[in-house]
Amino acid sequence: MSELISLTWDDEKEELSLLDQRILPNTINYIVYKNGDGIYDAIKDMVVRGAPAIGVTAAYGIYLSIKDVYENNFEAFFNIMKEKCQYINSSRPTAVNLSWALNRMLNKAIESKGMPVNEIKSLLKAEAKNIHKEDIDICRKIGENLLTLLNDGDGILTHCNAGQLATSKYGTATAPMYLAKEKGWNLRVYSDETRPRLQGSTLTALELQRAGIDVTTITDNMAAVVMSQGKINAVIVGCDRIAANGDTANKIGTFGVSILAKYFKIPMYIAAPTPSIDLNTPCGEDIPIEERDAKEITCRFGVWTAPKNVKVYNPSFDVTPHENITAIVTEKGIIYPPFEENLRNIL
Amino acid sequence: MSELISLTWDDEKEELSLLDQRILPNTINYIVYKNGDGIYDAIKDMVVRGAPAIGVTAAYGIYLSIKDVYENNFEAFFNIMKEKCQYINSSRPTAVNLSWALNRMLNKAIESKGMPVNEIKSLLKAEAKNIHKEDIDICRKIGENLLTLLNDGDGILTHCNAGQLATSKYGTATAPMYLAKEKGWNLRVYSDETRPRLQGSTLTALELQRAGIDVTTITDNMAAVVMSQGKINAVIVGCDRIAANGDTANKIGTFGVSILAKYFKIPMYIAAPTPSIDLNTPCGEDIPIEERDAKEITCRFGVWTAPKNVKVYNPSFDVTPHENITAIVTEKGIIYPPFEENLRNIL
Repeated sequence: MSELISLTWDDEKEELSLLDQRILPNTINYIVYKNGDGIYDAIKDMVVRGAPAIGVTAAYGIYLSIKDVYENNFEAFFNIMKEKCQYINSSRPTAVNLSWALNRMLNKAIESKGMPVNEIKSLLKAEAKNIHKEDIDICRKIGENLLTLLNDGDGILTHCNAGQLATSKYGTATAPMYLAKEKGWNLRVYSDETRPRLQGSTLTALELQRAGIDVTTITDNMAAVVMSQGKINAVIVGCDRIAANGDTANKIGTFGVSILAKYFKIPMYIAAPTPSIDLNTPCGEDIPIEERDAKEITCRFGVWTAPKNVKVYNPSFDVTPHENITAIVTEKGIIYPPFEENLRNIL
Repeated sequence: MSELISLTWDDEKEELSLLDQRILPNTINYIVYKNGDGIYDAIKDMVVRGAPAIGVTAAYGIYLSIKDVYENNFEAFFNIMKEKCQYINSSRPTAVNLSWALNRMLNKAIESKGMPVNEIKSLLKAEAKNIHKEDIDICRKIGENLLTLLNDGDGILTHCNAGQLATSKYGTATAPMYLAKEKGWNLRVYSDETRPRLQGSTLTALELQRAGIDVTTITDNMAAVVMSQGKINAVIVGCDRIAANGDTANKIGTFGVSILAKYFKIPMYIAAPTPSIDLNTPCGEDIPIEERDAKEITCRFGVWTAPKNVKVYNPSFDVTPHENITAIVTEKGIIYPPFEENLRNIL
């Protein structure tokens, strides 16, 4: 078994390969993109998922979309590029990294105006590779910072998938696990399956297992028992948004895990690229929480596991209050309380 | 929709009807037993489940098995009855109520020795009906006692199925919900789906919905959010065994719920028929915890939701420490801390 990477770029062949995440955990298949045609569908249909991985895919996708545009007039070239960006951007309108990456590509073109179009194309390719490399660097740096808080042999509980599969490499919450493996440490990872969509058992357990990292799948309601047995030295999770006071929105269940960690006096770490920190959101109450379809709970597996018309409550995220968080670990360093002050300082 | 009852006895036709719980939540079918032939399979294959319901089924089952034994000699009759008891008892050897009910039927026969066999048969039928009625009375009494701790409009969180479907009527944890309905109260029940076997969404949500009680299904990891929103006034769960110090073994996930309840200062009540209290077990550490097959987690629905050979930890129960329990509510009354002393007093 080899390590699973969500996306790879072959610079010589100019090909983007995406791991088809729709058929995980038991079928591993890469889809190769030689031009921009399939990129919109790849993002829309969730061949690739995870905000950072989507951003990188979009950047390569737009390069693949314009590389064969034989047009020497900048305005004409740029208009085509803008149209293609708009199209790709409409694949999943809510993912921030998607429009961020596309805008960065557009800006690169604008600032290169006046150069021959062929040279602009080379610069766009280089920019996509930069976006890709920066994503890897950010994740690695988060991992290095988290690793200073851990010891060889530690047990770690994680929730959902803030993993390599959601980024270009390493992941955020999983980054210290990959780096520990590199340096020969043996961490023991417990992965909550994370109902209702099961990202923990279908993605996190899979990617860690493939990387040869010791991972055990548990149902969400087993976390307390595992903690009580002294098996967990730290909880590490990702995040969707961090408010100015440190309140952290993440996958549903994270709040509960933070309460258990507090009860058992286990440190609770949030792995967070700095763009996740939103100083314009004062506190957790200001973060809107998406409620999703009942069938995610009642019929997730093509099998009805609840009465068909039963009332369901299905919030997709919850907010962990800052007082339950030991530290927020970014690529720029480790942030401890008081978060209000220290988050401002690091940005 | 009508209320779901796990078993009903037609005294005129001498027929036992069992709700086929294997095909819930979306198919409702009763199987009728006119003699003892299918009772062993019904228990073994889990047509009927839940220790109290199994005990009552076994009692009627043994009556149905001997009612057509035309033998006037007591010893001959009793030997046949004993054999049939042994057979039924071997259907699920770990359920305490099963052997308890069968022994009670055997003892009734022994104490009636000397009477004509036909009269003994009548006494055995009456004994099965007594066991049935006592089960209903115990559940109703637990419900009445729990109801004194609740108010109209309260929100209640429950975990797993300590419901009507596991007993003859009312259930234990669900008993106050049915009684509240009888008196016109509107309780709002939140039912954890209870991974991995989903007894909460397949059984509890179903039976409450059918009874017209306001029930909302959530995944286990949503309990913290629901509590934080002020929607829960009490947690009520059943139990598998209560140790002498009040430590309580129940379905996996109960321990975690108790920690959340403590964090949010919500009372945590255990619904417990007194036979669940085991003074011979000093504390929770002495209760053996069964670990079950990995496939319950990785392939519960005929669909692989985790990598096939991933490591899994699957304890079936956990132990809630007595300090997280507000009260243990039995048919004989409400027991508050100190449990060590007060459990002894009530028995």
